[in-house]
Amino acid sequence: MQDERVGALKAHLGQVMDLRGAAAVLQWDQEVYMPPKGAEARGEQLATLQALAHRLFTSDETARLLDALEGDLDALPARTAKLAEVTRYDYDRALRLPEAFVKEFAIVQSRAYEAWTAARAASDFARFRPHLETMVALLRRRADYLGYEETPYDALLEDHERGMTTGMLRPVFAELATRQSALVERIMASPRQPDLSWSKTVWPEEAQWRFCLRVLGDMGYDLEAGRMDRSVHPFSTSFDVYDVRVTTRLSEREPFMAVMGAIHEGGHALYSQGHDPEDRRTPLLEGASLGIHESQSRMWENMIGRSLAFWRRYTPVLREHFPEIPRDVSPEQVYAAVNAVQPSLIRVEADECTYNLHIILRFEIELDLIEGRLAAADVPEAWNAKVKQYLGIDVPDDAHGCLQDIHWAHGSMGYFPTYALGNLYAAQMMPAIERDAPDLWARVEQGDFGGLLAWLRAHVHRVGRAKTPVEIVRDISGTDPGAEAYLRYLESKYLPLYGLA
Amino acid sequence: MQDERVGALKAHLGQVMDLRGAAAVLQWDQEVYMPPKGAEARGEQLATLQALAHRLFTSDETARLLDALEGDLDALPARTAKLAEVTRYDYDRALRLPEAFVKEFAIVQSRAYEAWTAARAASDFARFRPHLETMVALLRRRADYLGYEETPYDALLEDHERGMTTGMLRPVFAELATRQSALVERIMASPRQPDLSWSKTVWPEEAQWRFCLRVLGDMGYDLEAGRMDRSVHPFSTSFDVYDVRVTTRLSEREPFMAVMGAIHEGGHALYSQGHDPEDRRTPLLEGASLGIHESQSRMWENMIGRSLAFWRRYTPVLREHFPEIPRDVSPEQVYAAVNAVQPSLIRVEADECTYNLHIILRFEIELDLIEGRLAAADVPEAWNAKVKQYLGIDVPDDAHGCLQDIHWAHGSMGYFPTYALGNLYAAQMMPAIERDAPDLWARVEQGDFGGLLAWLRAHVHRVGRAKTPVEIVRDISGTDPGAEAYLRYLESKYLPLYGLA
Repeated sequence: MQDERVGALKAHLGQVMDLRGAAAVLQWDQEVYMPPKGAEARGEQLATLQALAHRLFTSDETARLLDALEGDLDALPARTAKLAEVTRYDYDRALRLPEAFVKEFAIVQSRAYEAWTAARAASDFARFRPHLETMVALLRRRADYLGYEETPYDALLEDHERGMTTGMLRPVFAELATRQSALVERIMASPRQPDLSWSKTVWPEEAQWRFCLRVLGDMGYDLEAGRMDRSVHPFSTSFDVYDVRVTTRLSEREPFMAVMGAIHEGGHALYSQGHDPEDRRTPLLEGASLGIHESQSRMWENMIGRSLAFWRRYTPVLREHFPEIPRDVSPEQVYAAVNAVQPSLIRVEADECTYNLHIILRFEIELDLIEGRLAAADVPEAWNAKVKQYLGIDVPDDAHGCLQDIHWAHGSMGYFPTYALGNLYAAQMMPAIERDAPDLWARVEQGDFGGLLAWLRAHVHRVGRAKTPVEIVRDISGTDPGAEAYLRYLESKYLPLYGLA
Repeated sequence: MQDERVGALKAHLGQVMDLRGAAAVLQWDQEVYMPPKGAEARGEQLATLQALAHRLFTSDETARLLDALEGDLDALPARTAKLAEVTRYDYDRALRLPEAFVKEFAIVQSRAYEAWTAARAASDFARFRPHLETMVALLRRRADYLGYEETPYDALLEDHERGMTTGMLRPVFAELATRQSALVERIMASPRQPDLSWSKTVWPEEAQWRFCLRVLGDMGYDLEAGRMDRSVHPFSTSFDVYDVRVTTRLSEREPFMAVMGAIHEGGHALYSQGHDPEDRRTPLLEGASLGIHESQSRMWENMIGRSLAFWRRYTPVLREHFPEIPRDVSPEQVYAAVNAVQPSLIRVEADECTYNLHIILRFEIELDLIEGRLAAADVPEAWNAKVKQYLGIDVPDDAHGCLQDIHWAHGSMGYFPTYALGNLYAAQMMPAIERDAPDLWARVEQGDFGGLLAWLRAHVHRVGRAKTPVEIVRDISGTDPGAEAYLRYLESKYLPLYGLA
């Protein structure tokens, strides 16, 4: 029996999802192909789509349709009950934010973004400071509207990682900070350092492009339901389970930027292509959280794409594509090169060993800002001190320090932690995968990722938003999100690489 | 004094235009970059955007905002009064169509399109016949809803060419049919025929691409506010006055397909880039009609791009781009080649002398269908007889006959005549341009189109929809749309080319 109430709810949500999908197409185009003068009109089109989607979703119609199902959730198919539950969760949160506040937030966001762009270009924090102050005040109000138990930062975390709390993160990040800093210190002191000389050549962009597409295809990314384009900042996006796109950037001097970027975005894209088609045009057709999304991109990029097994397969392919490199370059040389560790200033260029340290310092600063222990004016000083403490290096200017990331200008706090959580989640998933698929690494060495993908499809991709991130990690690993698995992974990989074990 | 009522109207219309602009981005992407499996979701997204735009535009809010201005139109600035008038015109027409009818039409359209695709591929008219029957019945109902005085076909014409009537078209098309048929007959009998042998080589696509962009840039197309991409069917589209895009198609064997296509779409794009920025996000920021739009594309493509002056400038540029062609090819040889006349079966490949004949036979068949003198089942026979009558050739199958165009499957009747009107309008504008800018052809010979573009900007582009097509033509040429100017243009160009004068 087709339940008419469910059909009506799905038709209503379908319109909201269509508007969001359309907005995503417009944003993709803006990053990839839009001519420069088109920006102003595009801003207006996006604002209209987002306002209409918000108005439609927060309309009484949504409540009416949900109320009609409320008494019967137990009688509904599990997936439908889940849809009602997730929709109710989103609806309640969306209703808590007054429309006037949403508008004010958008205006401050847009001004802060402009100020940040200019401030970063001039490496002049003073220009951004007043906007950061306003933004922090707005984010505290946002937290008050949304509600929280322990700290307003929890409300912001909840925006990006449902169920995650500051109380859960604190001890985990403390453990990571201590042990990753120590590991990096040992690595930097090691006499064995990777040989990068063989890679110092020109890597033609056209061959990089073909190499990236080759690897994406091997991973199982469906190019009939996706495509790759160039953009300044690589990203992935989806408009439907059958239209999931990635972008990459190419540099003739840095070949692994393109390929690692493509594998990373490919990991996101496989997640989006793997959702359950039954969930199309509903809020279930999304990643469970940013952290789970990042677990997919980082697993593919770092655990697979930076593994020795992977390069046993792809070093010959690399030689085929690039006659420019020495004919005798070995998988071990490539493996060492793509895993070179070096504390550096810029988060997006950081290696696996230092990456979480960049996140932790941001988390600490955000928490101090939101809880009122740190003034916006004091951010550069706090930033530079933490970079020294965790990474052992000096920040020469704010462009390479606290102005490097767009997130705060965009009003996103509580977002950075999800990157580190992605690393942790991936490391907690991997032992389960190795247990269920003991031939995993032998198959990776053949360029066969089918077993891995099937496992991820079943345990992560098809779940969509039907579980929270903590539920997903717990169901797979048997434990809550934690530091141990990731630290074990890092140490077992990097100590031997640097002759320390 | 800023009139709040005008501000409110513009804000309301702005949302409608944003939705339409967003839909246009989605359609552009669909034609140019969308992966094949994305089609289904894209259809749903477009349907939602179009339904919301229609709902918003036909809402009581539109009437309320227009009513508030109604008594004061004389006191408003002329442009604002025009905006109110054009919006009222669109609103009244949109309201006349019941929502149930609009939905029924969309469903029939989508089924007819699928049937037509299959029918054309199999060259099997029988598969399309029932859909054509239903479509004709629907179009007659559409005409009844919209209203007309002389014939239901007038209501359909009005959809595409405001103010144009069957009564105005009949004598004009009769004159064109007689004289163009006679002209083609003389040309085909002439002993002087163009030498195409020099062009029978491979024209690399990459060089064609650069040549097209070079010409578009010279024409004045702003590539900071536009871009060119490849697509199966070339088109131009705009999302804003500062985001106007063209597409082209390339074939290594047919170099002039790409360049003439690019110039044609460039003519459309210059029109869209030339609208008044004050009209952004309002219904005035559009072409006055399909016919006026086509006058721009055809003027640039045929009167400029197929002129001897143009090829005096661009033959050396052609030689630069294509080392493959003989070094001594002359402007006169290129001019003769791009103006080769040859009656053929396919409208979109027709030359200037035969093009209108393709239109006229479609007009006659549409009129007979809508006025009930012709049954859908008898279309192939009628079609083939008219092709023989006007073009002197036999139609081998329906794929090359009455199934070649998408328009009927799409429910567009009264649309074809606008292509011919574009030719006529352009020919009526040209004498005024030559009078106002006597150095026109000397400047074209230098690759300088600034004078022409400035004239079109002032007399056509910036007008937008503030005048009807007939008003535009009358204000420029002093006469109503007619056949004489075009026939004079054709005869003065083609008789000498074929040694007949």
